[in-house]
Amino acid sequence: MITVSILGGSGYAGGELLRILLFHPKVKVQEVTSRKFAGRPVSLIHPNLRKATDLLFIDPKDIKKCDLLFVALPNGESMGIMKDLQKKAEKIIDLGADFRLHKASVFTSWYQREHALPELLSKFVYGICELHRNEIKKASYVACAGCEATVSILTLYPLVKHKLIKENVIIDAKMSSSQSGMSPSLSTHHPERAGVVRSYMPSGHRHTAEIEQELSEFGDLSVAISATAIDMVRGLLVTIHTVPNKGVEEKDVWRAYRAEYKDEPFIRIVKESTGIYRYPEPKILQGTNFCDIGFELDWKTNRLVAIGAIDNLVKGTAGQAVQALNVMYGFEETTALTSPGLHPI
Amino acid sequence: MITVSILGGSGYAGGELLRILLFHPKVKVQEVTSRKFAGRPVSLIHPNLRKATDLLFIDPKDIKKCDLLFVALPNGESMGIMKDLQKKAEKIIDLGADFRLHKASVFTSWYQREHALPELLSKFVYGICELHRNEIKKASYVACAGCEATVSILTLYPLVKHKLIKENVIIDAKMSSSQSGMSPSLSTHHPERAGVVRSYMPSGHRHTAEIEQELSEFGDLSVAISATAIDMVRGLLVTIHTVPNKGVEEKDVWRAYRAEYKDEPFIRIVKESTGIYRYPEPKILQGTNFCDIGFELDWKTNRLVAIGAIDNLVKGTAGQAVQALNVMYGFEETTALTSPGLHPI
Amino acid sequence: MITVSILGGSGYAGGELLRILLFHPKVKVQEVTSRKFAGRPVSLIHPNLRKATDLLFIDPKDIKKCDLLFVALPNGESMGIMKDLQKKAEKIIDLGADFRLHKASVFTSWYQREHALPELLSKFVYGICELHRNEIKKASYVACAGCEATVSILTLYPLVKHKLIKENVIIDAKMSSSQSGMSPSLSTHHPERAGVVRSYMPSGHRHTAEIEQELSEFGDLSVAISATAIDMVRGLLVTIHTVPNKGVEEKDVWRAYRAEYKDEPFIRIVKESTGIYRYPEPKILQGTNFCDIGFELDWKTNRLVAIGAIDNLVKGTAGQAVQALNVMYGFEETTALTSPGLHPI
Amino acid sequence: MITVSILGGSGYAGGELLRILLFHPKVKVQEVTSRKFAGRPVSLIHPNLRKATDLLFIDPKDIKKCDLLFVALPNGESMGIMKDLQKKAEKIIDLGADFRLHKASVFTSWYQREHALPELLSKFVYGICELHRNEIKKASYVACAGCEATVSILTLYPLVKHKLIKENVIIDAKMSSSQSGMSPSLSTHHPERAGVVRSYMPSGHRHTAEIEQELSEFGDLSVAISATAIDMVRGLLVTIHTVPNKGVEEKDVWRAYRAEYKDEPFIRIVKESTGIYRYPEPKILQGTNFCDIGFELDWKTNRLVAIGAIDNLVKGTAGQAVQALNVMYGFEETTALTSPGLHPI
Repeated sequence: MITVSILGGSGYAGGELLRILLFHPKVKVQEVTSRKFAGRPVSLIHPNLRKATDLLFIDPKDIKKCDLLFVALPNGESMGIMKDLQKKAEKIIDLGADFRLHKASVFTSWYQREHALPELLSKFVYGICELHRNEIKKASYVACAGCEATVSILTLYPLVKHKLIKENVIIDAKMSSSQSGMSPSLSTHHPERAGVVRSYMPSGHRHTAEIEQELSEFGDLSVAISATAIDMVRGLLVTIHTVPNKGVEEKDVWRAYRAEYKDEPFIRIVKESTGIYRYPEPKILQGTNFCDIGFELDWKTNRLVAIGAIDNLVKGTAGQAVQALNVMYGFEETTALTSPGLHPI
Repeated sequence: MITVSILGGSGYAGGELLRILLFHPKVKVQEVTSRKFAGRPVSLIHPNLRKATDLLFIDPKDIKKCDLLFVALPNGESMGIMKDLQKKAEKIIDLGADFRLHKASVFTSWYQREHALPELLSKFVYGICELHRNEIKKASYVACAGCEATVSILTLYPLVKHKLIKENVIIDAKMSSSQSGMSPSLSTHHPERAGVVRSYMPSGHRHTAEIEQELSEFGDLSVAISATAIDMVRGLLVTIHTVPNKGVEEKDVWRAYRAEYKDEPFIRIVKESTGIYRYPEPKILQGTNFCDIGFELDWKTNRLVAIGAIDNLVKGTAGQAVQALNVMYGFEETTALTSPGLHPI
Repeated sequence: MITVSILGGSGYAGGELLRILLFHPKVKVQEVTSRKFAGRPVSLIHPNLRKATDLLFIDPKDIKKCDLLFVALPNGESMGIMKDLQKKAEKIIDLGADFRLHKASVFTSWYQREHALPELLSKFVYGICELHRNEIKKASYVACAGCEATVSILTLYPLVKHKLIKENVIIDAKMSSSQSGMSPSLSTHHPERAGVVRSYMPSGHRHTAEIEQELSEFGDLSVAISATAIDMVRGLLVTIHTVPNKGVEEKDVWRAYRAEYKDEPFIRIVKESTGIYRYPEPKILQGTNFCDIGFELDWKTNRLVAIGAIDNLVKGTAGQAVQALNVMYGFEETTALTSPGLHPI
Repeated sequence: MITVSILGGSGYAGGELLRILLFHPKVKVQEVTSRKFAGRPVSLIHPNLRKATDLLFIDPKDIKKCDLLFVALPNGESMGIMKDLQKKAEKIIDLGADFRLHKASVFTSWYQREHALPELLSKFVYGICELHRNEIKKASYVACAGCEATVSILTLYPLVKHKLIKENVIIDAKMSSSQSGMSPSLSTHHPERAGVVRSYMPSGHRHTAEIEQELSEFGDLSVAISATAIDMVRGLLVTIHTVPNKGVEEKDVWRAYRAEYKDEPFIRIVKESTGIYRYPEPKILQGTNFCDIGFELDWKTNRLVAIGAIDNLVKGTAGQAVQALNVMYGFEETTALTSPGLHPI
């Protein structure tokens, strides 16, 4: 039994961590912080946790030592206090963006600010277990991937590693409203946000940097993301348009995915010839830690379309973090992450 | 470890049973039938179960003996074959409507047909554990309640038992599309069904009979249901308009609910003065076995508005059935039913 | 050709007025005010009006004289400045709540504040043309009804006038998000608001006062409203639970509705025995000025369920206001209000 | 005043034609056919038309002569009877796919069947007025474009004509449920279709042929479409990923769009630096004949992302057809097509 605390527990990532960790048989949630809601029950903000816990939020300045600390703060906030946090726990899993990129210069170019702790960047392991399981096993510090980066990297990794596609990759991402966090604004106001198919970021998505970092070891890669917000609370689907290398056939793609993922508990290759769920769909992944991946080779236009889907708050955030915890402590990797998802939903 | 099979496993109720039972530590799912899909994997129809099971549907005529048989057939189908089914299993839980009503005449008046097996009606216990736990413990046969009846009965039971309300009760039910089952029709066609606020049954809902049966032992009761379909896949909310007896105060209502439900694992009284989830909401109950109940006394109009919410496919169907199984076998009542639900969703 | 201006043009009511008035052949929109957006194009806030107008918002203090002034301010704001506004235009149509109630004491009891201009209350005609056409013809000042009051009054009026129902009336209202206006908050934040069936006001809705005011001339009436917010941007449906007087039959109800509404251009009695749109539905009323009304007599429980649907922003707000304008100036009453609505939608 | 009839009036395209034509001041709708619903009021199927018309469906075999005949039949049905239809009207506008492609061989390769009337293909003008206004003026026969083709062609046309982009074009289309027509199936069943982000056609969309036909006169073009169905009833958005030619700057793109579209009544270039509707969005186009177009140049990845949005049933189908009618008869081109769309919605 280990003790964990959550710094920044009133956001969606923090709530999702709680939802999972409260049912983890080897973990005791010690404290959850919120500056704004200190003293109030966590179920005030996360009403799904009524009856599951009596925890109250505490002020972050009162946080005690624990075995592992989850940091779920807005981007840019954890790097300023990470030195203090290191005194609170031997192990830290950061769910924000501050320690994902290994190079401070790349961070600066995408986030338009200096990194406050560049010397610590090399101590953090990028949190996708499917790519970095062995490093995570030994890591003290893990930086979980961005949700959009997670699904894109997992979908592309076997294609890139097995040299099946050319350098230029276009990621057309369909995004949900929970990705914009918990702060209301006119753009998230229900009458304005419901029913949209909104090109909120036709180019320039920051997760590009993570994808290029993780995949460029296998060769040059140019990644372009276009992000469209749709009427969905949870979930993320990427349609990735790539150009296959000469001679690549469907069986090569199957082989690459199987080679990398056949023993992965949270990855499913979804490519059916019948039924109505023939490709990955985020709808049925809500609440699960799965990343579903599919593909189609388009002979006429010489294209390989790869499709990936996740729940952005689970595999894309909190589930990924718990999976990393499981690996760090040698627990069964699927512990507390076995929910199969709902159908219909 | 007990063995169970599901007769009629390709519908939404059957799929939901599977989703729960595959993760039940004391239950082995032996067989799942479907006439139409015999030989095909269950995950073809229930895509959330990919990787969770390799089970194939079998033809119902090939079903073998098991400890407990779940029957999830369309209304009217189980009574015709129940005699045969009794040979397949010692215990039977029927999720359909055929054995819910104790009197054949009442069945006939609401379902416009003769009951095929009236002599068996008295052998079935009505499946709401909160009302019939002791009978279910000893029962061989359980008939699970209709979803609309379940939430209405649970919301009204303490009010009626404690004599807090007058005889006339109006239930305004907000219904989801999964309640109409898995057969497509023009009325469930997405362009026609999306966005509706459809008064599909302003009066005459069959679940009235169940509600009156369960609650009339405490005195006369006249129940009127108006059902409105809204744009929701899963979930059910009832707004129950009642007239309080003279002198009834808020603390009396609290006392009644606490008296009946304070130790119930699946019932939560939701009545908050702050936050945005102040009353029960089906949105955050998806996938859970909770019935959330709230109320408001309206002094100006001398009304007691009681509000109940469930996931129609879990507490209203499959979760209720598994809860009954747990009680029948002396398992911990919450086994396999602890999912807390998602937020946001 | 008359000139009109809109005071408070950046909200949903103001935008909807613009949408209708820009296509009104006898009306010229002179000015539209917004303190916050003065100098910016109205299409910045109302993007549907791109290419339909080049109007810029002006600051309210700069507003010039016009023939008719529409006031679309938050509740409580128009009474404080109404004396000044009277100098700007001969005729005023107020879309807010300040001048709907004839008695200052009733206003105070529902809005918890003193009325700033009680002497003017008697000058305002309540804006529902179907009930007050002749007064509106001669009126200088009109106060449009609240959206929930509009549909409830129109649905109940023939029943009450023709003495078909008993005194106690329960209105179960299904509400959309545009009714909460344009200011974002956590409760309207998309991840929290999407998918809800939220009992945001089980009792105590302020529109009760308007309904009682308009209908009590025909006898005692006790109105109880329970309001539930659902996942809908535009639209409003009321399910009204009433008790019919002894001997009332379906043909009596038909007769009452026909007597009052057979020549009304914006009221349709919807009660079909076939098809899937058998009762009123707000879905197909979006953008229209219709109020659809239906009913069902429930013999078993001695109930008359009446159902009314509108677009809250059109018949419930801006369309009602333009209809009143048409009546005030002797224009064809349907001018600029003929949109039939969309199907599917 | 001209007389028109609609062959195939019970589908969504037919209903939308009716909605527009019933309010067209120069058009009288003479007859509407439906084999299945002959004798029934059109408002049974198109409930938005209640009170707007008393028309009954007639059997197609009884159709009389008229000035212009709209043909709104399923793909593949009009070519078999077109010879007969030519006797019914001087002018014909076909909304189906049969006469869109000029070459029978291309038709065969995409629709997997022989064309029944190849000799007539050259008589039909492709129905996008923005490209073929002069031909349509003189045409007797018009074949309206597919909805996906319409928005893609309009978005790409200036880019291709002005040589701004390279040959390879990827169209990522977000589709609505009304595009699949009015026949229910499991894939359109609400519990299965609601909330989806479904890659229903990652490659191979038939509209590719139309796009290539219309744009290839300006040079080689390779078009790849990936179509994803989302939870939307009406509307279509395309995110078009292209590679700009060397040296192309933002002002060049503006210039191209302005050169082609500055006088077009139904095209709006939407590219705002503030507000929340900064790019085209189908949400606010419902019921309108607009095609909104925007773009973004992505320097980092050398990409030009062009974005187009329409209402698939209006500009993509029935509105396009009425626009063509207006051109054919020399009516004001916007007649009956001025609806500005709703906000919020």
